[in-house]
Formats: sequence, C-alpha cells, structure tokens
Amino acid sequence: MEPFVPTLEQAERIITQTGQTPIYVTDKQNLSHKARLFRDAFGPGVKIFYALKANYNPAIVLALKEAGIDGLDTVSPYEVLLGKKLGFTSEELLFTGNGCSNDELRQIHEQGVISNLGSLSELKRFGDMFPDAPCAIRLNVDVGDGECAFVVTGGEDTKFGISDCDIGTAKDLIAKYNLTLIGIHGHIGSGFYQKESFVAGVEGILGRAKGFDAPLKFIDFGGGFGIRYHLQKEAINLKNWAGAVQHKLDDFAKTMPEDFHYRLEPGKFLVGESTCLLARVTMVKPERKTTFVGIDTGFNHLIRPTLYGSYHQIINLSATREKRGEKQVTVVGNVCESGDIFGDNIILPNPEEGDILAILSAGAYCQSMSSLYQLRPPASEVMVDGNNINIIRAPMSFENLAEFIAS
Amino acid sequence: MEPFVPTLEQAERIITQTGQTPIYVTDKQNLSHKARLFRDAFGPGVKIFYALKANYNPAIVLALKEAGIDGLDTVSPYEVLLGKKLGFTSEELLFTGNGCSNDELRQIHEQGVISNLGSLSELKRFGDMFPDAPCAIRLNVDVGDGECAFVVTGGEDTKFGISDCDIGTAKDLIAKYNLTLIGIHGHIGSGFYQKESFVAGVEGILGRAKGFDAPLKFIDFGGGFGIRYHLQKEAINLKNWAGAVQHKLDDFAKTMPEDFHYRLEPGKFLVGESTCLLARVTMVKPERKTTFVGIDTGFNHLIRPTLYGSYHQIINLSATREKRGEKQVTVVGNVCESGDIFGDNIILPNPEEGDILAILSAGAYCQSMSSLYQLRPPASEVMVDGNNINIIRAPMSFENLAEFIAS
Repeated sequence: MEPFVPTLEQAERIITQTGQTPIYVTDKQNLSHKARLFRDAFGPGVKIFYALKANYNPAIVLALKEAGIDGLDTVSPYEVLLGKKLGFTSEELLFTGNGCSNDELRQIHEQGVISNLGSLSELKRFGDMFPDAPCAIRLNVDVGDGECAFVVTGGEDTKFGISDCDIGTAKDLIAKYNLTLIGIHGHIGSGFYQKESFVAGVEGILGRAKGFDAPLKFIDFGGGFGIRYHLQKEAINLKNWAGAVQHKLDDFAKTMPEDFHYRLEPGKFLVGESTCLLARVTMVKPERKTTFVGIDTGFNHLIRPTLYGSYHQIINLSATREKRGEKQVTVVGNVCESGDIFGDNIILPNPEEGDILAILSAGAYCQSMSSLYQLRPPASEVMVDGNNINIIRAPMSFENLAEFIAS
Repeated sequence: MEPFVPTLEQAERIITQTGQTPIYVTDKQNLSHKARLFRDAFGPGVKIFYALKANYNPAIVLALKEAGIDGLDTVSPYEVLLGKKLGFTSEELLFTGNGCSNDELRQIHEQGVISNLGSLSELKRFGDMFPDAPCAIRLNVDVGDGECAFVVTGGEDTKFGISDCDIGTAKDLIAKYNLTLIGIHGHIGSGFYQKESFVAGVEGILGRAKGFDAPLKFIDFGGGFGIRYHLQKEAINLKNWAGAVQHKLDDFAKTMPEDFHYRLEPGKFLVGESTCLLARVTMVKPERKTTFVGIDTGFNHLIRPTLYGSYHQIINLSATREKRGEKQVTVVGNVCESGDIFGDNIILPNPEEGDILAILSAGAYCQSMSSLYQLRPPASEVMVDGNNINIIRAPMSFENLAEFIAS
C-alpha cells in the first residue's frame, strides 16, 4: 500500500465539511494495513509495541489497537498515563526514558510499568529506590543508523544505552539491589533503510543478552524502520528483514523460559505513510531566482523539513502536469522565518493561489512535534475510513489557546 | 544590565515554592531596564512595537506595557486577539504576516488593525477585498543579516517583502484599489550585531520610501537587535546605532505630515536576556570520548540549540570551579533524539546529579517555540520582582494535556 494521497474530491469534501486548512488527514485503512504487514512479516512471536511519540492522537492509537498491536513504547510519564487511558495494561507498556529524574522513575513504578534503564546512573538510582523490583535495561550495541545524525541513537558515543565497558558494573548493580532483569532492549536509530543495520542491531543485542545469563521475559529490538517519503521510492521489505534474523531469534528463544517473547517498537512505520497534511496555496511570489509558493501552514505544524532537512513529497491535488505544465518552485510556510521551507526548488504542476497541496507521509513526528509558535493554533485532524470522515482533533479557539499559554 | 542569572539561593527558593524543574524564570527588572534602554537610545520619537512572537506570556507582555512600550508587532490573528485582550488598541497593533490567506487578512481587517502587506499577491488580494482601506507595505531592501541563515529575512531572494522590481506594480495596485498607504516597513533579520547592517537597512527603507511620495503615518524598521547569549560578550551599543541614523531620520521626518513617527520592533532585545531556564542534572554518563550530563528538560522546551545551532551559556548554579574543579561535558536533554544537545563539549564546574543548571538568555524564541513532543508538559514560568516570586504559567495536568491533544 502506497503512502496515503487523497483525491481532489476527497480533499475538497474534507475541507468543506470541516472548514479547515491546514488539516492532517489520516487514512484508517492505511494504518491497519501497516499493522498487518508488520505482523505478517515477523509473525505472532514478535510483539508490536507502537512508539507513541510518533503520533499520540488517541483515535490513531485506538485504530492501531483495533488493528492488533500489543502494547506501547512510552518515553514520559504522561505517555504512560495516556496509554492507560486508552486501555493498555501496565504489562502492555514499556517505559524507556533517558536521563530520567528520580521523580519520573517513581511515577512510572507507581503505575506498575517496567522501566527500561539506559545508563548506570538510572540503574543505580532505580535500585536505590526500588530494590528487588523487576526492570529492563537498554544496551548500546555500537550500531547506529537513521535518517540524519539527530536521530541516530546507537554508536560509539551516545547518551543512550549502557555501553559494553559498563556492562560489568550494570550486572553488579543488578545483583547489589537484587533487581530482576526481565528485559533487554536496544535501538539503533530512526528511519533506516538497510537490512544490514537491522540485522547487526539484532545480532548485537542477542550476543550481549547471552552474557547476562538471565531468564528474560523479553528482548526488545526497538524501532526505526524507514518509510517512503517519496512515492517513487521502494518500501523496505520487512519479510526479508525478518527472514534474515529468524533462525537467530529461534535459537536464542530456545534458551529462554516458556513465556519469553520478542518485541519491536515501530512508530514511523505504522503511522508515517497513513497521513498527509493538506494546505492551501495562499501566495505565489516570483522573485529573481526563485518562485515562492506560500501555503497556510508552517514549521509550527510540521517541523521535520526545517529541523532535520527531511524530504516530504508534495502533491498539487488541484492540478495536473497536462493541464498546467510544470514549474520549479519553492514551497514555503507562513512562519516569519526563512527556514520555513517545505519543498526547496521542487517541480510541481504549476501552482496557483487557491490550489490544495498534500504534504505526504506526515503521520509520524509531524503533529506530535508541533508548537504554538506565532500563536497559530494546532492543525486540525481528521480520520477517513472509506467514505466516512471523522474529526479526531478539533480546531482550537482563541479562548482555549489563551488559557493554555498562561497560568 | 547583564543577562539574568539567579543566585543559587533564589533558584532554590523558586524550585521549593513551585515544586518545579524545569522552570523558566523571568526577572521583571531586567525587562523594564531593557525597555528603558531602548527608549533612551532612540528617544520618544521612535515607537516601540514589541515583537510578540518572541515571548507571548501575558505577564511578560503586561510588564513591558507597564515599562512603556507603545504597541505590538503581530504575525497571526490569534496574536492580534491576544494583544487586544492585554489592552492594546487597534492602532497599537501592526499585523505583518507572510503569504497570508484571504481569511486571515479579513480577520485582521475586522479587528481594525493595519495589515503590512509583503507581496504583490497580498496587496492585490487585500485591495480586492477592501478597496479604499488604509494599509502598510513591507519592502525587501536587499540587506540581510542575522544569527543564522534561517532567520535572515532580507536579501536577494526571499519570501519576505516587495522587491525593487515589483515596486512599480505595487504603486499601480495601491492606485487601482485606492488604498491609503500609511506605513512602510522593512526587517533584515533576527539577531544581528553589526551597526552597519542596521544603518544599511534604515537607509534602504528611507531611500525607497521617498520614492512613494506618500504622506505616511509611520516608517517601521523592524527588529532583530542581537543580545548576549554569552556573559563575556559585549552588548550592542544601541545609543551608538541610533546616533548613526539620527540625522537621516530627522531629515526624512521633515518631509512627512505632523503625526508621522518611526517604529522599531524589538522582540529578542526586550525579553531575551530577562529569562533563564532552570533545570536539574538528572544523570552523569561518562562515555569513551564524552561525558554526557543529562538534565530534566529537552528541545521540547527550548529548541534553539537543536534547530539553529544556537549557543546559550549554561551556568552550574550549584557549584563553583574552586569547589569542584572544571570538566568538559556535553549537556543533553531528555528527548529520545541525539540532536537534543544544550551545550556541546563545554567547560563547567564539574556537574553532579542534583545540581541546578541555568540556561541563560532564554526569554526569546524559547518557551514560545516549545512543543508537547513526547508528551512532556510545557515548562512552568515564574516572574521574579525583587523578593517576589509570581507563577506566570502553571504546570499542566495530564487531564488538561489529554484534552488539548484530541478533539
């Protein structure tokens, strides 16, 4: 299934019904398809813990739950509370913070949720507070990959995970505090496309896990599976990736207790392609070298291109190449900063003011990273399911916004 | 007056009283000092229109109002509504969008606020909707400067302002729609430190304004005055900058009607140095090359270092060099991304877990660009005024957050 692109008719119906642009549009069928694809590739032995930070919209999380995901990867106390509110049990949540405060570790513990500890500091403080408790640890397996340097989380020098040189001390701390090590975790980065990186990550974690010689409940290989930000790009072949590690998984599992299982934490993979951001062309401004096409959204709503230099394909839903011809344009947002660029010198069917553009693969790390910068309210959100259009995030009134920003 | 740094005692009192870290702390006296400094440099003939996007906390805006600023530079309809709510009249607000939608232009017009139109597209659409109305225009004067490429807004090819080659058409549109041109505006970028850039901007705008031969009410030179992100850096000498343009301002003003005035739009200059972000060291994690010092905040609360590569000086309030010795450390946030770095290999009095760090000059484009990424609530805010500590943004409960993120 391709990244979701609505038809012009569908987009116009959504905009008419809601009175909104910009608006995030999520295709429910795309979500459930991705969950199925993931399950089919890795089989029922691998539990899917959706990385909630990718997109926390409750309707989207519930759609994934309906599609059969097993749990949530959470990274903050409020994410844990949201997971509970949406019906996940403590066992269906794993908390992986980094540099957590004692207060956070306490909140998570009180929720009955396992903390995945990623440094000797966390392990020691956790043990001090909760001796004899169960816990998981995050290892740094010296493998890193991802879309850009900002989101590579494994490798030689990183704030994430316990490095090899500290594993001995980690074992000592686990013994000292009589902690029960029930899970081992690793995550190499976000948005990678090489099977080799995945395989190396899996091997790195399994190899180190053996050395702990503990009866684990789970091993968690994290997430980071790349998606298509360009319609012409080929999707990663998950079945193939799964096949490459299958016998290693089977071999290791045999050494573990009956109730042992594996986990993966896809975020972007499940939600990224399901959603596009619809925006209206408000301005065409030809300058000496560049034709700027202004739209009614900005990096307040979708910061990935500005923050990471990420590419998101943009479609002009209102025009075809045949009708309008093509033009090289720079699609910019309405934030008062030059860095607010969605598409730098891209080719589009010649945009005119009033056209509707769709920014594709905007389901992950888009709305969830949005801000109120320049006091523009959050973009609204709808979910389409066949012919149904459901508003899953309503527009924010000025009164609500004014209340939000002050005490 | 230096960028605000609380004493350890003051910081501890704030943290005890509010129960919060991270927390933004604003010094009211610093705010009013900066407003006075600005007024003294440019004199009463230059009106100060504070750039609201720098920091929209109502208590901070009201403190600036008390300190005598004349109006607000606004960039969105909700900013206009907030300005009204805080007691500014329509005449005390100027709206400078970019690539505005017709709907936005209509909302601003209905509020009785002047729109500052920055493209032929906006000028034409505004004229179509509101013939005979008063308006201002934003010119691109081919001068650009600023902290980094993202925030340089003037220059050869930019989405901002009407370029020289379009001025003829702009005049035709103004005539065609019988618009009354009451103001001319230019802005070269954010965070510049060179008097020459300021002078060139002023000269560029005045020169072009002459060519319009219109009885203006104001000329607005924008903002962008650089501040100290490092305590050792020297502040810009505003008096000196003002002196360098004074006679040009006087000469031009003589050709204008009685009620003509100049405007400047400082944002960062007024609020930037007034505020620091206090955070607690939660983790010290020595790795092979780097010692990571984790704190209980992240780029969800303060994105400038991650987004722009900006430098913010960090002070270890809890320790002195004499007591602890110095250490080279990398101060990182608690967001699950490697790019979440506040200080990359900086020298600090050796940090220990529990220490309080102050991230300085965090009053502008910090809280106002914050997000709910990873579902951590916004940092709270207090304002100190001598011995008084007032909470100006309360902590956000999970219930409020859950309501905010869904429909």
